[in-house]
Amino acid sequence: MKQKRIYLDNAATTRTDPEVVKAMMPYFTETYAVASSQFSHTPGLEAREGLDEAREIVAGKLNSSPEEIVFTSGGTEANNLALKGTAQAFKGKKDHIICSGVEHNTVLHSCQWLEQEGFKLTILDVNEEGFIDLDQLRECITDHTFLVSIQHGNQEVGTVQPIAAVGEICKENGALFHVDAALSFTQMDLDVNVLNADFITLSAHKIHGPKGVGGLYVRTGTELNKIFHGGYSEFDLRSGTENVAGVVGFGKAVQIAQPDHVENIRSLQKHLMDRLTKDIQHVIVNGPKDIEKRLPGNVNVSFDLVEGESVVLHLDMKGISVITGSACFSRSLEPSYVMMAMGFSHERAHGSIRFTLSRFNTMEEIDYAVESCNEVVEALRMISPLKK
Amino acid sequence: MKQKRIYLDNAATTRTDPEVVKAMMPYFTETYAVASSQFSHTPGLEAREGLDEAREIVAGKLNSSPEEIVFTSGGTEANNLALKGTAQAFKGKKDHIICSGVEHNTVLHSCQWLEQEGFKLTILDVNEEGFIDLDQLRECITDHTFLVSIQHGNQEVGTVQPIAAVGEICKENGALFHVDAALSFTQMDLDVNVLNADFITLSAHKIHGPKGVGGLYVRTGTELNKIFHGGYSEFDLRSGTENVAGVVGFGKAVQIAQPDHVENIRSLQKHLMDRLTKDIQHVIVNGPKDIEKRLPGNVNVSFDLVEGESVVLHLDMKGISVITGSACFSRSLEPSYVMMAMGFSHERAHGSIRFTLSRFNTMEEIDYAVESCNEVVEALRMISPLKK
Repeated sequence: MKQKRIYLDNAATTRTDPEVVKAMMPYFTETYAVASSQFSHTPGLEAREGLDEAREIVAGKLNSSPEEIVFTSGGTEANNLALKGTAQAFKGKKDHIICSGVEHNTVLHSCQWLEQEGFKLTILDVNEEGFIDLDQLRECITDHTFLVSIQHGNQEVGTVQPIAAVGEICKENGALFHVDAALSFTQMDLDVNVLNADFITLSAHKIHGPKGVGGLYVRTGTELNKIFHGGYSEFDLRSGTENVAGVVGFGKAVQIAQPDHVENIRSLQKHLMDRLTKDIQHVIVNGPKDIEKRLPGNVNVSFDLVEGESVVLHLDMKGISVITGSACFSRSLEPSYVMMAMGFSHERAHGSIRFTLSRFNTMEEIDYAVESCNEVVEALRMISPLKK
Repeated sequence: MKQKRIYLDNAATTRTDPEVVKAMMPYFTETYAVASSQFSHTPGLEAREGLDEAREIVAGKLNSSPEEIVFTSGGTEANNLALKGTAQAFKGKKDHIICSGVEHNTVLHSCQWLEQEGFKLTILDVNEEGFIDLDQLRECITDHTFLVSIQHGNQEVGTVQPIAAVGEICKENGALFHVDAALSFTQMDLDVNVLNADFITLSAHKIHGPKGVGGLYVRTGTELNKIFHGGYSEFDLRSGTENVAGVVGFGKAVQIAQPDHVENIRSLQKHLMDRLTKDIQHVIVNGPKDIEKRLPGNVNVSFDLVEGESVVLHLDMKGISVITGSACFSRSLEPSYVMMAMGFSHERAHGSIRFTLSRFNTMEEIDYAVESCNEVVEALRMISPLKK
C-alpha cells in the first residue's frame, strides 16, 4: 500500500484544486485558439472571453481594474518585470532602489543585478522576528528613489511586513511601491485603494492554481517598460501567447478562495505551533511570536542539538513533507539568507524546520506531524554529537 | 446544433493533444511538489523525475543532451533569453547582431531594443519568396558579430531558410547561431550535430503541447546570461518554479510527434494549394512556390480584388478559422511586416489569407474550406469596389 502523504510544504507550492483543473480542461482541447485572434475568428474570441473573465476575478480580489492586471509566467517573472521594468523606465531620471534583506531571491537577485548595472541599492535590515524598520526606510528614501520593493509575507518565517505604512512613506516621498504578495494573495487583505501599492506580484501555484502562471498588478498610469519584447499582448506590457488555460485556472483558484479557508488554516497553524512548542523540549520559534503577524499556515521552529537535514529526511520517511533552512539542500552552500539577515546563529538556521499549511491539511495530519516530529527529534538527540 | 469548427490557424497555436492533457493530469493534483525540493522530500523527487523524463525526450529529438535544454515559459521567453542573454554576456566584447526582416516579432523587437541599448544591428533582406541571401550574410558578418538569429520556418508564408548554410557561415566567422524553430520542431529535421546551431527556440503549444511552456537549446559551453534572476533552476539559466505539468505535457507532445503525421500534413497542404490555385481565379501564392521549401501545413495566398478581412470574417461564419496579413487586425495598423519585407504591394498583403494545418485536419475539411473560400471570394468580388 502506498504511504499516505502529508504535504506541509505549501509555501513552495500547493496542490492544484481539482475544481481549478476542471475549469482549465476545455481550454486545452476545445477553446484552444490564441486570444489575440479574437478579431479574426470565433475560437479566438472564445479564448479572449476566458482570459477576460479570469482577469476580472483577479482584479476584483485586489479591488483594482482588469486593465491593471498583467498576466505573467509566474511570480518570478512578475518580480523581475516590476524591478527591471521600472529601472528601465527611470533610467537617466532616478537611480535608487530599496528592498529588504529578506525579500524572495527573485527580488533580491534582480536588485543586485540592477546594482551591477549602475543603479544604487539599499537593502534594509530586519530584526530578529524578520520585521523591517520603518525609520530606517524613512532615512534611506530620497528624491532619487524610484522604487521600494517590500514583500507582504516572508517565504521562510512568515513575517508580515507593515506594507500599508511602507506605502504611505513611498507616497510621501514620490517613490513607487512594489509588494511581492505571492504568498499572501487571497489569504490576507490586499486592497489597492488602501495600500498605496503601485505593483503587486501574484502567483497562481501558491494558491491552488497551476504552476507557470502569475500576474503583476500595475496601477494605471505607472511607468513601466516591458522586459519581453515581441507582440502587444497584456496591454503591451508582456509579449507572448497568453496561457489561456493557465490564466483561467488562476482565476478559478482566486474565485474558490474563501475567508473560512484562512480561518481553518489559522486554527491548524495555532494548533501546530502550540503542540510543537509544548510537546517537544528545546524548541525556538523562528519569526514573529505573535501568530497574527505571520502568514496563515507558516510555522518555523528550530530544534536544539539536531540538524534540520536529518529531521527533514526522517520526516519524509514517515510521509511528511517539510523543508529546512539548513545549507545542505541549497545551491549556495550557505544557510538560509533570510535567517542570516535575521541575525540567527548558523546552528539555529541549521536546526530550523518550516511547516507551511494549506486548506487541504487536517487536524489529524497536524497531530501526526507533531508526534512524528517528536519521535524523530528525540531519536536524533539520543545520537547527537552536539549533545552536551 | 453547434456548428462544426474547422481550425486552420495552427501556426498561431494548436489543439493540445488529449494524450498530452492526460500525461499532465497527475502533476496537478498528485505529483504537485516543486522539483527543487527533490533533496528534501519524496514528492519533490517525483516532480523532478517527471521533469527529467520530459527533458530527455525533448533533448533526444534534437540529438542533444538533457543539460542543454532550458525550459522556459514559451517561445517568446526563449527568443528573448537567447538574444538578450547573449548580448549581456558579450557586452564590452562584441557588439554586432544579425537577424532577418521576417523574423518573428519576438526576435525582431528584441533586436531593435538591443540596438536602442547601444548594440549594432543588421537586418538581412529577403527576396519575394521570403528567403534570405547567404551572400549578404557573408558580407555583413564581422569579427564583432556575436550572434546571428535566423528562423527555421516563417510564421506567415512558411519559407524554410537554409539554416545549415547559415550555421556554416557563423562557424567560419566565430559568431554564435540562434535558430527560432518554434514552428518547425518535430515537423522538420533539427539535429544539433548537423546544424551548427548554438541556440534553438522551442515552443510546446505549436506542436499540440500546452501554452505557457517552451525551451531553449543551449549548446554546452556557450556564453549566455540569464534574464530572470532568482533561484538556480534550469542549470542556473532560468529562475522560477518549474512548470512541471506543462513541461511533462511538452515532453509528451514531442514523444507523440511522428514522421507520418508530417506526411499526412504535407498531403493536405498539397491538396489545399492545388485546389485553391486551380478552383479559384486570380490567386497568387505567397511564399515559396516549391512546397517542399515551405513549413509543413503552411498555405498562404492572396485573392485579387478582395480584402483579407472580409474573407476571414465570412469564412468564420462558415466555421473556418484562418487569418490575414491585412492591417486591420494588427495593433500596428500596418499590413504584415513580413510581406512588406518581401516587397509585396499593400493590395497583395491586404488580400492575403493564411491557412495552417495540423494532423487533426482531414481531407474533407480541406475540401470544405476550398469550396467555402471559392463561394466567399466570388461573392465578395461581385460587390467589390476594387473590380475594374
